[in-house]
Amino acid sequence: MSFWKNWFADAGAEEAAVTSTVRPQAAGQPRIYLSNTRSIDVYELEELCDAVGWVRRPVRKVKKAIEHSYLVITLWWENGTYRRLIGFARATSDHAFNATLWDVVVHPEFQNQGLGKALMDRVIRDLRSHDISNITLFADPGVVEFYERLGFVQDPEGIKGMFWYHD
Amino acid sequence: MSFWKNWFADAGAEEAAVTSTVRPQAAGQPRIYLSNTRSIDVYELEELCDAVGWVRRPVRKVKKAIEHSYLVITLWWENGTYRRLIGFARATSDHAFNATLWDVVVHPEFQNQGLGKALMDRVIRDLRSHDISNITLFADPGVVEFYERLGFVQDPEGIKGMFWYHD
Repeated sequence: MSFWKNWFADAGAEEAAVTSTVRPQAAGQPRIYLSNTRSIDVYELEELCDAVGWVRRPVRKVKKAIEHSYLVITLWWENGTYRRLIGFARATSDHAFNATLWDVVVHPEFQNQGLGKALMDRVIRDLRSHDISNITLFADPGVVEFYERLGFVQDPEGIKGMFWYHD
Repeated sequence: MSFWKNWFADAGAEEAAVTSTVRPQAAGQPRIYLSNTRSIDVYELEELCDAVGWVRRPVRKVKKAIEHSYLVITLWWENGTYRRLIGFARATSDHAFNATLWDVVVHPEFQNQGLGKALMDRVIRDLRSHDISNITLFADPGVVEFYERLGFVQDPEGIKGMFWYHD
């Protein structure tokens, strides 16, 4: 965990892919890295979302949502010429004050290795670098503690997350 | 209240100003109407926000936030050539699935007349007309009931609104 933490904390410019490997890096070893590229195979993203049990969504709408997100961060596992999408997060924003995170996911095979934290650290850092001060999200009950460890607070000063439903 | 409700429910195309008056309309009477114009005097908006006790924000950032909001709905009081901004709401969105409301405000002099409901009904209708299915917001404790009456649900299935804070 601390290895990931240090590695990602040292990462460079926003456009640069942030890379690392779990074991000491050697030629031919797979690497895992973060990117802010939006060049994503939407079907691969939906497979990733499938893996964590989310409902399938129309590909056309997923593409539109990615296009109109303020920030997209992807997590990749790469071995030679083979690259696999293993994590994802995106944020909507008014480009000034507020950002809201959606679709934060790490593939189950790659969970519990600090990669979710690395993904979120990158998201927060990128948003903060654009002077976005209010970073918000809606957390399922099972991940509230995960976000609390990252510095998120639930219902601060009694502020409640609310969703509109049809009558 | 029901007068407002019916009036706004009957309103036409998105670009058209939605108008009404509290008393039976007569020549020279002031009117109150909703609009989706973004031609707002940002100083007037900040005065409106002042009136409900919100902290002042840099005008440059307010302009940027309006520019990058997916939807802006304004509420106006008009008498002859004099027009006053008395309500405001805006939403960020990924243009596909999710919208989040920010800066929902009605001037205290014009509260308790059903105008907040009219403003929100318009916001919801416009978002729904763009096939946005997930309309979200973060409600201060004092307005949770107001939003519940409009069909918003707090913490559905245990989903928690969370805000990130500096360490």
